[in-house]
Amino acid sequence: MAQVIADRRDIEFVLYEQLEADKINKHKEYSDLDKKSLDLIITEARNLALKELLPINAEADKTGLRFENNQVFVPEVFHKPFRILAEDGWGSVTEDPDLGGQGLPTLIMQPIIEYLMGACGVCLGYVTMGHGTGKMIELFGTDKQKELYLKNLYSAKWGGTMVLTEAEAGSDVGNLSTTARKNDDGTYSITGNKIFITYGEHDLTENIIHPVLARIEGAPAGTAGISIFIVPKIWVNDDGSLGEPNDVVCTGIEEKMGIHASSTCSLAFGGKGQCRGYLLGEENKGMKVMFLMMNEARLNVGFQGFSAASVAYMYACNYAKERIQGRALEDSANKDAKPVAIINHPDVRRNLLTMKAYTDGMRSFIYYVADLFDKEELAESPEEADRFNKLIQLYTPVIKAYCTDKGFELASTGIQVYGGYGYISEYPMEQILRDAKIGSIYEGTNGIQAMDLIGRKLGMDKGAIFMSFMGEVAKTVAQAKAVPGLEDMAAKVEAACNRLGETAMHLGKTAVSPQFKAAFAHSTHFLEAMGDVIMAWMLLWRAVISAPKIEKQKKAVEKEYYEGQVKTAEFFIFNMLPVTMGKMDSITITNPAALEIADSCFGG
Amino acid sequence: MAQVIADRRDIEFVLYEQLEADKINKHKEYSDLDKKSLDLIITEARNLALKELLPINAEADKTGLRFENNQVFVPEVFHKPFRILAEDGWGSVTEDPDLGGQGLPTLIMQPIIEYLMGACGVCLGYVTMGHGTGKMIELFGTDKQKELYLKNLYSAKWGGTMVLTEAEAGSDVGNLSTTARKNDDGTYSITGNKIFITYGEHDLTENIIHPVLARIEGAPAGTAGISIFIVPKIWVNDDGSLGEPNDVVCTGIEEKMGIHASSTCSLAFGGKGQCRGYLLGEENKGMKVMFLMMNEARLNVGFQGFSAASVAYMYACNYAKERIQGRALEDSANKDAKPVAIINHPDVRRNLLTMKAYTDGMRSFIYYVADLFDKEELAESPEEADRFNKLIQLYTPVIKAYCTDKGFELASTGIQVYGGYGYISEYPMEQILRDAKIGSIYEGTNGIQAMDLIGRKLGMDKGAIFMSFMGEVAKTVAQAKAVPGLEDMAAKVEAACNRLGETAMHLGKTAVSPQFKAAFAHSTHFLEAMGDVIMAWMLLWRAVISAPKIEKQKKAVEKEYYEGQVKTAEFFIFNMLPVTMGKMDSITITNPAALEIADSCFGG
Repeated sequence: MAQVIADRRDIEFVLYEQLEADKINKHKEYSDLDKKSLDLIITEARNLALKELLPINAEADKTGLRFENNQVFVPEVFHKPFRILAEDGWGSVTEDPDLGGQGLPTLIMQPIIEYLMGACGVCLGYVTMGHGTGKMIELFGTDKQKELYLKNLYSAKWGGTMVLTEAEAGSDVGNLSTTARKNDDGTYSITGNKIFITYGEHDLTENIIHPVLARIEGAPAGTAGISIFIVPKIWVNDDGSLGEPNDVVCTGIEEKMGIHASSTCSLAFGGKGQCRGYLLGEENKGMKVMFLMMNEARLNVGFQGFSAASVAYMYACNYAKERIQGRALEDSANKDAKPVAIINHPDVRRNLLTMKAYTDGMRSFIYYVADLFDKEELAESPEEADRFNKLIQLYTPVIKAYCTDKGFELASTGIQVYGGYGYISEYPMEQILRDAKIGSIYEGTNGIQAMDLIGRKLGMDKGAIFMSFMGEVAKTVAQAKAVPGLEDMAAKVEAACNRLGETAMHLGKTAVSPQFKAAFAHSTHFLEAMGDVIMAWMLLWRAVISAPKIEKQKKAVEKEYYEGQVKTAEFFIFNMLPVTMGKMDSITITNPAALEIADSCFGG
Repeated sequence: MAQVIADRRDIEFVLYEQLEADKINKHKEYSDLDKKSLDLIITEARNLALKELLPINAEADKTGLRFENNQVFVPEVFHKPFRILAEDGWGSVTEDPDLGGQGLPTLIMQPIIEYLMGACGVCLGYVTMGHGTGKMIELFGTDKQKELYLKNLYSAKWGGTMVLTEAEAGSDVGNLSTTARKNDDGTYSITGNKIFITYGEHDLTENIIHPVLARIEGAPAGTAGISIFIVPKIWVNDDGSLGEPNDVVCTGIEEKMGIHASSTCSLAFGGKGQCRGYLLGEENKGMKVMFLMMNEARLNVGFQGFSAASVAYMYACNYAKERIQGRALEDSANKDAKPVAIINHPDVRRNLLTMKAYTDGMRSFIYYVADLFDKEELAESPEEADRFNKLIQLYTPVIKAYCTDKGFELASTGIQVYGGYGYISEYPMEQILRDAKIGSIYEGTNGIQAMDLIGRKLGMDKGAIFMSFMGEVAKTVAQAKAVPGLEDMAAKVEAACNRLGETAMHLGKTAVSPQFKAAFAHSTHFLEAMGDVIMAWMLLWRAVISAPKIEKQKKAVEKEYYEGQVKTAEFFIFNMLPVTMGKMDSITITNPAALEIADSCFGG
C-alpha cells in the first residue's frame, strides 16, 4: 500500500542506520527503549495521525475559525483528536510522564511529530503550544509556579502562547509599549495590546497561559528593559483551582493565506485595568527567557517546513505513479504506444528526485540536530554539553529558514507534479503550500534568521563552533573517500565545504569592516549556501552507509533503496551543488549595489 | 504620490529609450501615434485601472463565484468595469477599431495591459478572452463565420474560451475522447466532457463562443485526428440574431487556490445529443489552429507572471518606505537612535533590488518581444518577417515559464518584505501569490514549456534562430564594452551568453543521442539559465543607455534613476549571474540519476 505523510523506510534509515537510535538504551535513563519498543511508538503515532488527524485536515482548512463575542471557536472536527492527543501525552513527548509527557528522547520525538504534524499541523499545534510555556516556567519559575502550571501545560489541559508582537513592535521587539506595574500583593498589572498571537484564544482548553513581554514602568528602553509575565486567561488560585476570568480580551482574529484553523489573535491586556500577571524570572530579564523558548519555537517552525516538504513529496510520488498521461519519450514517434504513468517522464522524475533529495536531506539534518539535544542531556562533561548546545545554536537559524524556504518551494514543486489538479482545492497540494508559507515569517522572518547566523552564530567561540561543524563534514568526506564509487562525490562536497569556510571567513571579516552593511546584504545567500552544503553532507553520509550494503541485499526493494540513496546523493551533488558554488562566488564578490542604489529608484 | 501597479517612469524608459516606440509613426499605419498621444493612451489605461479595477480586486477574490442551476455568476463588482472595458475596446487593443479594437501596435498594448492586468487580472480576462477565439476565426474561419462572430468577440460583446482539456487528456491533448459527427446541414454534433475551461460559463456576456477540440468519428488517433469546432453557447442564426441555447451545460466549477473570481468550468457538450458546432478550418487540422492561439495565450500567461512581479514589487517598495521597524544597522549600539523605515535594512534592500532587477528585466524582455510582433507586421520582406516570427517562437516558452516562475517567487519575496502582514488577507500580498501560482500550470505546465524549448525551439532552422538571439546579446555586449564603467559587466554577460551557447549545443547533441532522456531531465534548468541570461542582457542594455545620461541630468531623481539602472545591472550580474553559471555547470554534467533511480525509491 502506498505510504502517506512520511516515508517510514527512510525514517528507519535515519534513526537506526544513520544515528543509531537503538543504542539509546545504553543510557540508564532510556534503558527500556529497545528498537522494538521504539518501532511500536512510531507506529502508534502514525496510526493516530492516519486515523484521527489526516481525515480532518482539509475540512478544518475550509471551515476555519468562528469568532463571536471575543471568543474563538475551532473547527468542530478538532475536538476529538485534540482530546486523544492531549490525554496520551503527545504534546510533551520528551517530558516526564509524571508531568504529562512520554519521557522519550528528543530524537524519537522526530518521527512522532513527522506523522502528527504532517497529518494536521494546526491541530497538533493546539496540543503542543503549552509545552513552550511550560518549559519557561520549569526553567525560570518559582516552585509555586511550577506546582500550579507545569503539569497542566505539559498535559495540554491548559493551552499556552508566546505574547511578543505589537503593531509597532514586530521584528523590533525592544520597541514594545505594553507596561507592567507592580501591585502590593506581588502581582503586576499589565496593560497593552498585542497582535499575531498564535493560539491566543480558542475553545479547546479550560485555560490559556500567556507569557507576556512588557516593560515595568521606569525600566530602561529597548530590550534591556523587558520583563516577562505569566498571565492566565482565567486566574489560577493558590490551591490550583480556577478563579475569575482575567482582563484578557481577544479583540479579533486574522484572515490568512493558510493555516485557517490556527487562531491568530489580537489580545487586549488590561483594557479595564484589571489584568494581573506574575513576574517570571527576574525583572528586565524577559528577553533571556523568551529567547530560550524562541529557539525551541524556531526549530519547531523549521520542522513545519520539512514536514510540508515530506507530505508534498509523498503525495507527489503517489500521484505520479497513478496518473496516466502521455507516451514515454522513447515511444513518442510510436502511435500505438500506450500512455504511461507520469513518473516515467524525465521532467517529472527530476521534480520528484528534487523533492526527495531535499526531504531526505532535511530529515537527516533535523534528526541529527535532535540527537544533539539528547547528546547534550547525556553528555559526560559540561564542556561536551556546551559544545553540543552551541552546535544546536549554530544550526537553529539554518533549520528555521532553510527548511521553511524549501518546504514552501517543494510544495510548489508538488503542485507542478499535479498539474492543474495541484491548483484545485479538492486535492491536497494547494493547502500544503498555503499552510507552509507562514513558516518563513513567524518566529522571526527568514531574513532575521540569516542576520542571526552571520551576526551572532558564525563568530561563536571565535569561530570554533562553525569550525566544529566543518570538522563533522570533513569526517563524512574522509569516510566517503574510502568507499569505492563515492570518491568523486566526496571531493565535490569537500570543495564545497572548504569554499563555505572561506565564504564565512570573508563575510565575518566584512561584517566588522566599514563595509559591514554589504555583509548583511548577503546574509540570506550565505544561509542558503550553508543549508545546501549541509544537505550535500547529509546525503553523502547516507551514501557512505548505503553503498556497501547494496550487494548484500536479497530483497530487490531493499537493494533499490540503498542504490537510491547513492543516486540521490549523486543527483544533489552534481545538479544542485554547482549552483551552490555559484552562490558562494556571488557572496565573495559582495557587490554593494543594493546599498548604494537611491531609495527613489524603488518606485519613485 | 506613491505609484502602484507599475513604475510609470520605467515603462517610459523601456518604451522610448530602449525600444523607441515614439518612432512607430514613421510607418503610415501608425502615423498619428506620436509620443504625446501614446502617453495619453497609457494614462487613460492607468486611470481606468486605478479607478475601476484596483478597488474591486480584493473583494472579487473574497466573494468568488456563485454556481446555481448550471449558471455561473461573477462577483457583482465585475459588471461595471467589464462594461466600461468592453465598450472602450480594451479587450482587443491591437485590432481594427471597426472590429471593436483600438488599432494600436502590440508594443503599446504592453503598458496598457500592465496597468489593467495588474489592477485586476481576473476581470480583465473576461474582457480579453474573446480575443483569442476571434483571432482563430479571423485566421481560419469562412467569410460567413467572420461576419457573424468577429466583431462580437473582439468587442467583448460575446465571450470566448479554449476548450481542450479532458479528465484523461491534459498535457496529452492527443488522447481526448470528445467526438464530432457531421450532420446533413454541414454542422457537426459534438459529444464529450471537458474540464478546466477558463471563463467557460459566466453572466457577463449574452453569448460565449467555445472553440472545441474533438475527433471526427473515424479520424486517426492522436493529435493527427483532432479537429476544432466553433460551438456557441447560444446558437447564432445566419442573420446574426441569437437562436436557441445550444446543448452546452456547465456541470461545475472548481474551488481553487487563487483567481477565485475566474470561472474554471466543467462543460458537458451534447449531453442531450443536441450540441451543434461548425468546423473551423480543415478536418483533422485542429491542432494547428489551436497552437497558434496557444502561443498567444502562453505569452499572455507569461505576462501575468510579470504583472504579479510588478504589482508585488510596487507594493513592497511603498510598504518598505512607510513601515518603521528597528534601528539602522550602523546605529545598532546607539540606544538613542530612532527606529527607521525598513527600506534602510540591508536584507530588505536586497529583497527590493531582487524584485526590481527581475521586474525591470522582464518588462524589457516582454516589451522587446511585443516589439517583434510589430516588426513582423511591418517587415519589408517575408524573410525578415519570418525571422521575427521565429524569434517570437523561440522566446515564447521562456516568457511563459520564466516569467510565471519569477512572478510567483517575487510575490513570495514581497510577502517577506511585509513580514507577518504579508500573510494576512487584509493586505494585498498573499492574494498576489495565490493568483500568480496558476501561471506555472495553465497553457502547458512550465515543465512542458522547457521540453518545448529544447525539443522544438533550439533546433529551429538548424539552430540559426537561437544563434540569432545570441547575436543580439552580442550586440549589446559590444556596446557595453565601449561604455566606461560597464566593461567588466559586459565581459561577464558575454561569458554567460557563450556558456549558454555551449550548453545549448551540448543539450542539443544529448537530445539526439542514446542519452536523450537525460537532456529532458535538464530542460527546466536550461530554460531557467536562458531566462537568466536574457535578464542580464536586458539589464546590461538598460545600463548602456543609462550610463552616458547620468551626468547630464539636472533633476536629482532623474540622475538617480539612470544611476539606478546601472546599479541594477551590477546587482544582477554580480549576484545572480554567478549562480546561473553554476546552473550551466550542472546542465553540462547531465547527471542521469533521476532516470536511473528505481521507482520504488519514490515512497516505496
